[in-house]
Amino acid sequence: MNNDHFLEIPVALPSNSYRVLVGTGLLARTGEFCADEKISGRCAVITDETVGRLHGSVVMDSITAGGYDAHLLAVPAGETSKSMATAENVVNRLLSAGLDRGSFLVALGGGVVGDLAGFVAAIFLRGIPLVQIPTTIVAQVDSSIGGKTGVNARAGKNLIGSFHQPRLVLADTTTLETLPDREYREGFAEVIKHAVIRDAALLDTLKPSQPRSSLSSVIAHNIAIKATIVKEDEMERTGQRALLNFGHTIGHAIENVAGYGTLLHGEAISLGMCAALEISQRKYGLPASDAQRVREKLLAYGLPLRLPENLDADTILAATRHDKKFDGGNIRFVVSSQLGTARVVKDVTEDDLRIAVDSLRP
Amino acid sequence: MNNDHFLEIPVALPSNSYRVLVGTGLLARTGEFCADEKISGRCAVITDETVGRLHGSVVMDSITAGGYDAHLLAVPAGETSKSMATAENVVNRLLSAGLDRGSFLVALGGGVVGDLAGFVAAIFLRGIPLVQIPTTIVAQVDSSIGGKTGVNARAGKNLIGSFHQPRLVLADTTTLETLPDREYREGFAEVIKHAVIRDAALLDTLKPSQPRSSLSSVIAHNIAIKATIVKEDEMERTGQRALLNFGHTIGHAIENVAGYGTLLHGEAISLGMCAALEISQRKYGLPASDAQRVREKLLAYGLPLRLPENLDADTILAATRHDKKFDGGNIRFVVSSQLGTARVVKDVTEDDLRIAVDSLRP
Repeated sequence: MNNDHFLEIPVALPSNSYRVLVGTGLLARTGEFCADEKISGRCAVITDETVGRLHGSVVMDSITAGGYDAHLLAVPAGETSKSMATAENVVNRLLSAGLDRGSFLVALGGGVVGDLAGFVAAIFLRGIPLVQIPTTIVAQVDSSIGGKTGVNARAGKNLIGSFHQPRLVLADTTTLETLPDREYREGFAEVIKHAVIRDAALLDTLKPSQPRSSLSSVIAHNIAIKATIVKEDEMERTGQRALLNFGHTIGHAIENVAGYGTLLHGEAISLGMCAALEISQRKYGLPASDAQRVREKLLAYGLPLRLPENLDADTILAATRHDKKFDGGNIRFVVSSQLGTARVVKDVTEDDLRIAVDSLRP
Repeated sequence: MNNDHFLEIPVALPSNSYRVLVGTGLLARTGEFCADEKISGRCAVITDETVGRLHGSVVMDSITAGGYDAHLLAVPAGETSKSMATAENVVNRLLSAGLDRGSFLVALGGGVVGDLAGFVAAIFLRGIPLVQIPTTIVAQVDSSIGGKTGVNARAGKNLIGSFHQPRLVLADTTTLETLPDREYREGFAEVIKHAVIRDAALLDTLKPSQPRSSLSSVIAHNIAIKATIVKEDEMERTGQRALLNFGHTIGHAIENVAGYGTLLHGEAISLGMCAALEISQRKYGLPASDAQRVREKLLAYGLPLRLPENLDADTILAATRHDKKFDGGNIRFVVSSQLGTARVVKDVTEDDLRIAVDSLRP
């Protein structure tokens, strides 16, 4: 069992330092790794019904073998579980299962499960430790790292939440092999985003034909990028962390308008990045060939460069404007003038947004 | 206006330092004090319908006069507003009012409003600043100080929440003059608790006949006691902060069994303290005369020493046992062996609890 290979990325933050382990065979060693971190007490593994069926028993067996009293708690798969109502329901089930202030949670699943379970860990009896076991590309390279947790409000995604850093993250790449093709591919939107904002050379190492089982080093490299940015700006105050929003302003608006589930998150972000590339190129000096390189990589992973026929560009523009209100009234937008770097600018106009969204028309 | 007198208690914590101002005429200077603290952005004043009618316009006028864009947002008065559903509803209303990450909240009211608004401030867009304006004795000397925020779960009070320290606390003692008599008196349960656990001399300074308008120094003294204990143990890890639970283990169980609203919080805590005094006296050496002194002071404020006829001692005992589960399985209980001091012990038995609850029978 211990022959499995893994990479280790330390995340050193002012509030909490933790290890991210990336590799194969990690699920079956969950209990052992928790013990290594001196995590103690009763445990609940929060997952969704799909991931629970695939990986629940391996994780539960491992935690139980580690001497922990563990409960498996599944929520319905999908974005609708990221709600205050589900969070309250999970809290009530944890209390019924006897969890207390000395207990801990394990989040086993994709971004929805990680964000929901992280939020519950933040607010359950004013906070208990959390272990993240992300099972999708996005969760492994992005959402499980950095402590952002939360649920959705009526007006938009992730508007309710807390910063609550995990105590340990286990990114087992064998879980990627069970992902449906479309959900596998969407994850590369965030990977390509990392390349745009921080590491242009990463673009060339991304090969859609690469076997999923050999992704550990790509995943680990992306975790290191995310961890570095989080370290520079844990609480999202200096603006560094805002660079991770490249493509997300318009991407979130597209996701909102499409309705959760029509487009996958990564697909909406792919479109949002295309819009941000258009603005970056037209107004901030990004070479056309660089923008094209990024678009080609998105396309290579089957990610969309144009809106689906049934999405109206004007509605998306209105939703983007609405979203924009959420930062002190200033229009803040992440652009790249050179691949591998990004910055926040405040002089993107409504016209710029319109032209960019128009460029996505089918 | 500036002729009003106030006392200032600094609360210096690792996570955040803030001032608590105690005195008269503070409500009408809210905007000025917020500006002094360099608090900026759009503001929502969260209150309940009762307090909003009494004090809403003074606070709103002051904040508006301070140049802030302010919204008044009232929830129904009473414990049922301390729920996840109300928290979500408030978040949605804040978003509709255009509040963003640069905005702040003002909690104007008693413990329910302070805990609810504090929790919303903790989770709204992952946290925004909070100003507490407590309008009851309990809120002024206890719940507005120290950063505990939260709502109730099905299984009990305050089981969902966060630590979120305020940026400023304004305790205007003129608000106490509008409190109904019973709600005024219940507040002294926590004041008497402070005397038991930290400052026996405080007992003698408490005179039920003292005019409410002259309470500033008593309030300020109690805030200083609470602030000192919080400073020693902000996140409730060393056990110091647990001393504030004197009387609360059995008190919470009584409150649960009675149903919220039958007994006021302070009345249930008065009963819980009587039970804790019984255990302290019988098993931990508290002189009988000291226990009697405390009981007489509770009685002088019209607080109960015996259960109401319709509350069953056996049910309370069962509820206490259930509550006890929430701390790693150990039975932890706060006792006093000498007035003015308290400690957590782990050898209180189920028999001890039974005898103590029996001593409350009418």
